[in-house]
Amino acid sequence: MPTSTESLSTASTSTATTSTESPSAEWLSGLDLVDHHCHGVIESDLTRDVFEDLITESDAPAPAGTTHFDTQLGLALRAHCPPLLDLPAFASPQDYLARRVELGAQEVNQRLLRASGITDYVVETGFAPDLILTPDQMGERSGARTAEVVRLEFLAEQVAAEHEPADFLTAFRARLDHELASAVGVKSIAAYRGGFELDPTPPSDADVTRAVEHWRSETPAGQPLRLTDPVIIRAGWWEAINRSVPIQLHVGYGDPHVDLHRTNPLLLSDLLRNARGSGASFLLLHCYPFHREAGYLAHVFEHVYCDVGLAVNYTGAQSAQVIAESLELTPFHKALFSSDAFGAAELYHLGALLFRRGLGESLDRWAGADGWPLEEQQRIAGLICSENARRVYGLDHRGGATGASG
Amino acid sequence: MPTSTESLSTASTSTATTSTESPSAEWLSGLDLVDHHCHGVIESDLTRDVFEDLITESDAPAPAGTTHFDTQLGLALRAHCPPLLDLPAFASPQDYLARRVELGAQEVNQRLLRASGITDYVVETGFAPDLILTPDQMGERSGARTAEVVRLEFLAEQVAAEHEPADFLTAFRARLDHELASAVGVKSIAAYRGGFELDPTPPSDADVTRAVEHWRSETPAGQPLRLTDPVIIRAGWWEAINRSVPIQLHVGYGDPHVDLHRTNPLLLSDLLRNARGSGASFLLLHCYPFHREAGYLAHVFEHVYCDVGLAVNYTGAQSAQVIAESLELTPFHKALFSSDAFGAAELYHLGALLFRRGLGESLDRWAGADGWPLEEQQRIAGLICSENARRVYGLDHRGGATGASG
Amino acid sequence: MPTSTESLSTASTSTATTSTESPSAEWLSGLDLVDHHCHGVIESDLTRDVFEDLITESDAPAPAGTTHFDTQLGLALRAHCPPLLDLPAFASPQDYLARRVELGAQEVNQRLLRASGITDYVVETGFAPDLILTPDQMGERSGARTAEVVRLEFLAEQVAAEHEPADFLTAFRARLDHELASAVGVKSIAAYRGGFELDPTPPSDADVTRAVEHWRSETPAGQPLRLTDPVIIRAGWWEAINRSVPIQLHVGYGDPHVDLHRTNPLLLSDLLRNARGSGASFLLLHCYPFHREAGYLAHVFEHVYCDVGLAVNYTGAQSAQVIAESLELTPFHKALFSSDAFGAAELYHLGALLFRRGLGESLDRWAGADGWPLEEQQRIAGLICSENARRVYGLDHRGGATGASG
Repeated sequence: MPTSTESLSTASTSTATTSTESPSAEWLSGLDLVDHHCHGVIESDLTRDVFEDLITESDAPAPAGTTHFDTQLGLALRAHCPPLLDLPAFASPQDYLARRVELGAQEVNQRLLRASGITDYVVETGFAPDLILTPDQMGERSGARTAEVVRLEFLAEQVAAEHEPADFLTAFRARLDHELASAVGVKSIAAYRGGFELDPTPPSDADVTRAVEHWRSETPAGQPLRLTDPVIIRAGWWEAINRSVPIQLHVGYGDPHVDLHRTNPLLLSDLLRNARGSGASFLLLHCYPFHREAGYLAHVFEHVYCDVGLAVNYTGAQSAQVIAESLELTPFHKALFSSDAFGAAELYHLGALLFRRGLGESLDRWAGADGWPLEEQQRIAGLICSENARRVYGLDHRGGATGASG
Repeated sequence: MPTSTESLSTASTSTATTSTESPSAEWLSGLDLVDHHCHGVIESDLTRDVFEDLITESDAPAPAGTTHFDTQLGLALRAHCPPLLDLPAFASPQDYLARRVELGAQEVNQRLLRASGITDYVVETGFAPDLILTPDQMGERSGARTAEVVRLEFLAEQVAAEHEPADFLTAFRARLDHELASAVGVKSIAAYRGGFELDPTPPSDADVTRAVEHWRSETPAGQPLRLTDPVIIRAGWWEAINRSVPIQLHVGYGDPHVDLHRTNPLLLSDLLRNARGSGASFLLLHCYPFHREAGYLAHVFEHVYCDVGLAVNYTGAQSAQVIAESLELTPFHKALFSSDAFGAAELYHLGALLFRRGLGESLDRWAGADGWPLEEQQRIAGLICSENARRVYGLDHRGGATGASG
Repeated sequence: MPTSTESLSTASTSTATTSTESPSAEWLSGLDLVDHHCHGVIESDLTRDVFEDLITESDAPAPAGTTHFDTQLGLALRAHCPPLLDLPAFASPQDYLARRVELGAQEVNQRLLRASGITDYVVETGFAPDLILTPDQMGERSGARTAEVVRLEFLAEQVAAEHEPADFLTAFRARLDHELASAVGVKSIAAYRGGFELDPTPPSDADVTRAVEHWRSETPAGQPLRLTDPVIIRAGWWEAINRSVPIQLHVGYGDPHVDLHRTNPLLLSDLLRNARGSGASFLLLHCYPFHREAGYLAHVFEHVYCDVGLAVNYTGAQSAQVIAESLELTPFHKALFSSDAFGAAELYHLGALLFRRGLGESLDRWAGADGWPLEEQQRIAGLICSENARRVYGLDHRGGATGASG
């Protein structure tokens, strides 16, 4: 089984990237890389329609006569992924997808995941879990360590379906404790369920019970429970805060169900203030186009971290600027890497490749202007690529690591 | 009559630009360029005061001791326009304006419009139409094709002045149908008339009639009707949506009458959702400083397009960054070019020159980093420069084209 | 006593900067530089805890195992300041702080302030005045000219503590007139006291008196009066507007007590409209991440100016991009320099060094693209570095200049 470094160097010789020209490219490729927020890959053959759906945040096909391949992500994919499947860079989408089927999903996933050089995956399991590989399976495919993060709203929906409203809170708390025995943190998708303009204080138990009663009575029989109630969302946040765990928050860019202006992370200011001293950390995910606002929060609040995952993939060749902007106010001990990849193994590989390249270009530029010594550049890159995530999630100290090598 | 390509190559040898160093500059200068949103030029001699007013979005003279030439636009103009009037680059504003008068407005307009290399002008005729050339005249001066877009609020003001409130909707609908027999789309300046925080659903006919009654009764006798009523603005939107036509929306940057924060395009999210499947397209104009937000909307909604016209001219030498940012999330099949030029022929030439240059610099950088083949670069540039606009406005298929050549 | 130019050239040979490679670096270092918004330095030995607190906008120590030196500002400081204290660039924070104590605060302040090359300090005296040097003392240490700006909210708190509510307005007006006999303008920190969503009209005298009564009665005996009442804040604004003086407004980025989204300068649009023609000027300070929005306001309103002080220091090696963005729409006759430095003399030096460098990189790039003649570059830089500030504050014409040389 190849080590991460071997598989990465294979990648860098066989793709179209010219990033080897960067002074930092070589040593950056050898650093551990923790993907602190991703999902699992799909391991079945993908039609063109399904694949196009996986490489856009839109929920609609591209207009007649156009294709979702004609995007920054599409071009980045065509530049860097075909060589890993033994095709020339910029092979046509048809040829690429045919080769994908020919090799088989397991082989494709294994090649792309290992090429990414990601050494640790922190996998969120609350979205479409029956379509994607489990964290253990991700560890097998990638040869990397894995850890798990649980989605608060998904837990609440499951608990509300299985328990009477009066028992909801007791059951939710027990379920959360159970999950956190192995999971390293939680995630909230409040951004998708109404946004951040919520009361920043904890709700009372009685308010939560009433809200669950209302939620269940409003949901037609036979329909799945979908959580949008702000009281119950806040209850999830505060249960996590009270447990002093890392809390991931989807912020900004996402699919068309987001009201983007309601996901400005500045709307979380009072919640963040109220949670100071709790021991909980807040990890602001994606953040585009509010990554400078997120950097401000990570700068002034000791318990706030952020990344530009998702945006790195979707801005492709232009991602270096986004990464540089995200490192304006964000302290170097607060910035993290994530791919936010879901489904397509290409997204892990591209997320890692583009992040390393953008970080490297920034470091080259800043070091050139201000004479940063190599050891300082490497120390800072180490914080961002792995050490900050290890510190905040306690990855080195927990018992639940899975995965075969690394 | 020179072809567009001939007049462009004249321009590129005689101005101060160094853009010929870019690998893409030469082939970009030969591509068709559709200006999908502009107004007409003024064809009379311009005093310094009037000219300064045309090169700023302010409605006030520059403070004592200063000049609107000391801006990005002013410097870009002084770099690129004097050579087209047989003066050296960076001739003084006085000399430039004197030469403008010496040559005469028609000759100046003809030189600058033809130098732009714009092959198609989509002209909006609802602002100060008696001051500027008509689309037909624009076609004569430029030697390019032209098409027309009608301003909804201007139509509504005309119809309300000519009809009783009870007849407004019938007359407005008839008038819109009449205009759309030749026009290729509509424009709304709701951004200037209160912003985007409007009910995203269609108003009832009765509500519209009542709103027109109120509007007319509130307008003092003898004063022109100026539309700010949100019900009537929404009526205009929905009449256009129901006709499945391209709808241009002024977004973001404009003159001091805009409340800029009320023109964030994210405030249109629900309207865009409600109009999915209608067959109408939305073209978000200018968008600065919300061009990343606009790119998000163009990414996730299949019927949304955007540009950074106006901002390209006004950010001048810095415009390449704005263009690159606008192409982060915007699919390459959704991005468009516009100048938003009004009055001064310089603005068409500079809009085209700066857009080609900024797009070229982006493509050079992205292609360099990721090895984009030349044919992919050219294909993508072709989409952005002309094909997207031709597809969404149906420019190749309509009968109303004017203009002498191209 | 060295002139500013001598001390600057010392700095540029002894630090790690590579900015001398820029075509503009040499002539930019010789230009006058007016810091139109700063505070005073602390002149006592600084422990590591206190120093770390001075180089962050957070109010908390960095998390366990991390340091506020691992930020853009920290790296810029380590690149450029140790050589001025006879240490190698990137000396460790420990060694640097030990050397600071060894040299003594007065010597350190004198070296760093003189290295900055700042020729005029406009000092705001309303924050922690007993901790920092006075404007006169700043003039002595730096060998530069100084002027003073008074903080409206600080004046109001002093006047309210010393007078009965019924006498507040009379006393406040007298006090403001007295201060403006020597001060060149005022500052408002409304951003820190609730933000900008205020009624944009002047309050009546009766409303102000009632608000002062309420404020005093709500403040527990023995507690200092802290102004957050919107009526009294507006009264301060309008007293300044009525006196036609320069009004500095804290905008955007600051410490965790700011609700950043309530400090978007676009929320000031109606106030700015209402103050047109008053003779008052508005100087929007810092503005990050709303510097493009601030540029829009400076573009369209003849009495609005802006800077990106504070953000330049805190974005360090990345600040050139922020400076370039701030010069997109801001007319060159409206942009200013400030450090917003407080306490640590390093912040004046770095603010000046990074600003000159970022401005120089922008000018090099823009001049390269568009062939800006050297004299135009120097004229524009002169406007931004000193002449705009001198014009708006009347610095050349007032009598109250202090400081030993320049």
